[in-house]
Amino acid sequence: MSSPLLEQLIDALRVLPGVGQKSAQRMAYHVLERERAGGQRLADALAVAVEKIGHCARCRDFSEDEVCPTCASASRDVHQLCVVETPADRLAIEQATGYRGLYYVLQGRLSPLDGIGPAELGLDRLHARLAEGEVSELIVATNPTVEGEATAHYVGQIARQHNVRPSRLTHGVPLGGELEYVDRGTLSHAFGSRSEMP
Amino acid sequence: MSSPLLEQLIDALRVLPGVGQKSAQRMAYHVLERERAGGQRLADALAVAVEKIGHCARCRDFSEDEVCPTCASASRDVHQLCVVETPADRLAIEQATGYRGLYYVLQGRLSPLDGIGPAELGLDRLHARLAEGEVSELIVATNPTVEGEATAHYVGQIARQHNVRPSRLTHGVPLGGELEYVDRGTLSHAFGSRSEMP
Repeated sequence: MSSPLLEQLIDALRVLPGVGQKSAQRMAYHVLERERAGGQRLADALAVAVEKIGHCARCRDFSEDEVCPTCASASRDVHQLCVVETPADRLAIEQATGYRGLYYVLQGRLSPLDGIGPAELGLDRLHARLAEGEVSELIVATNPTVEGEATAHYVGQIARQHNVRPSRLTHGVPLGGELEYVDRGTLSHAFGSRSEMP
Repeated sequence: MSSPLLEQLIDALRVLPGVGQKSAQRMAYHVLERERAGGQRLADALAVAVEKIGHCARCRDFSEDEVCPTCASASRDVHQLCVVETPADRLAIEQATGYRGLYYVLQGRLSPLDGIGPAELGLDRLHARLAEGEVSELIVATNPTVEGEATAHYVGQIARQHNVRPSRLTHGVPLGGELEYVDRGTLSHAFGSRSEMP
């Protein structure tokens, strides 16, 4: 390599997910050849984000303030609380649905083998939140995986302890898909829970 | 989005080639969730690289010094000079072959329609370099594209003006490939220039 700094940059780029040696090379050359200003902007944005972005004290999502804009907003419905595993899940729901309630981000899922229990997911704070008595519906939107389902079950029990109604997203055949390519579990579930046509 | 700084970071990441909105989101979340130290390292490496990496005065490759380590090295053969289009091409040759000569990086190819002529490729400096009289062979390793071939032709003429022998990489069937999948032009060329078996 013609420059140790270039080598360092390529090495540092590999911290990004899905970026191997070749992609990192291509990125480094691209930035140096055509996007020096953009590269400087990225360096600044990264440094500031890593330093300033923490977690919202209410919902545990990423936030640079003590309380994130969503939790601080007066226009959200405080009676609905949606529990998700990650900030990316929260963003997906926010972008796809018209949901106007609040969120609670677990930042993970129950996984005893990895040492992730109720404490790591901040479930004591969820207890306290539900004890406040404002929430009437807890929408449990963890992923439909084994660990996500176990987490959902656990969170649902917490809700019932506080007389809050837990709900769960419907499983079924995705819109726009073809039955031929739907996995067996989903198809079997959708078939079994079929409803009468209106 | 829960944080303006996060939004800025996602936006800034899109400067990287092949990174769209979704990948940028995934990268930002990954760095914030699991790789804050790596993110800081990347920010530093980027800022330093963008500021410090310029071009070698001899070969025009990226370099943080006036003259890059390869050009400054006493162990390289100064009689061979290999002309490539980009730093990535130079790296590919350096990694794949046992070449011990020097390089000259055009940082592009002749493309009159895009306003890239001999001056933009620093061919005046190549003239001066060949006039020094040290180089005896000029290996023209531009890409086998229309513009790359035109550039090779032009560079070859410069070499002949200075009584330097220009050479060009052999075209032919790639090793390990199957004839069925080789493109027609390459196959026709390889067939026409066949050589007797030893």
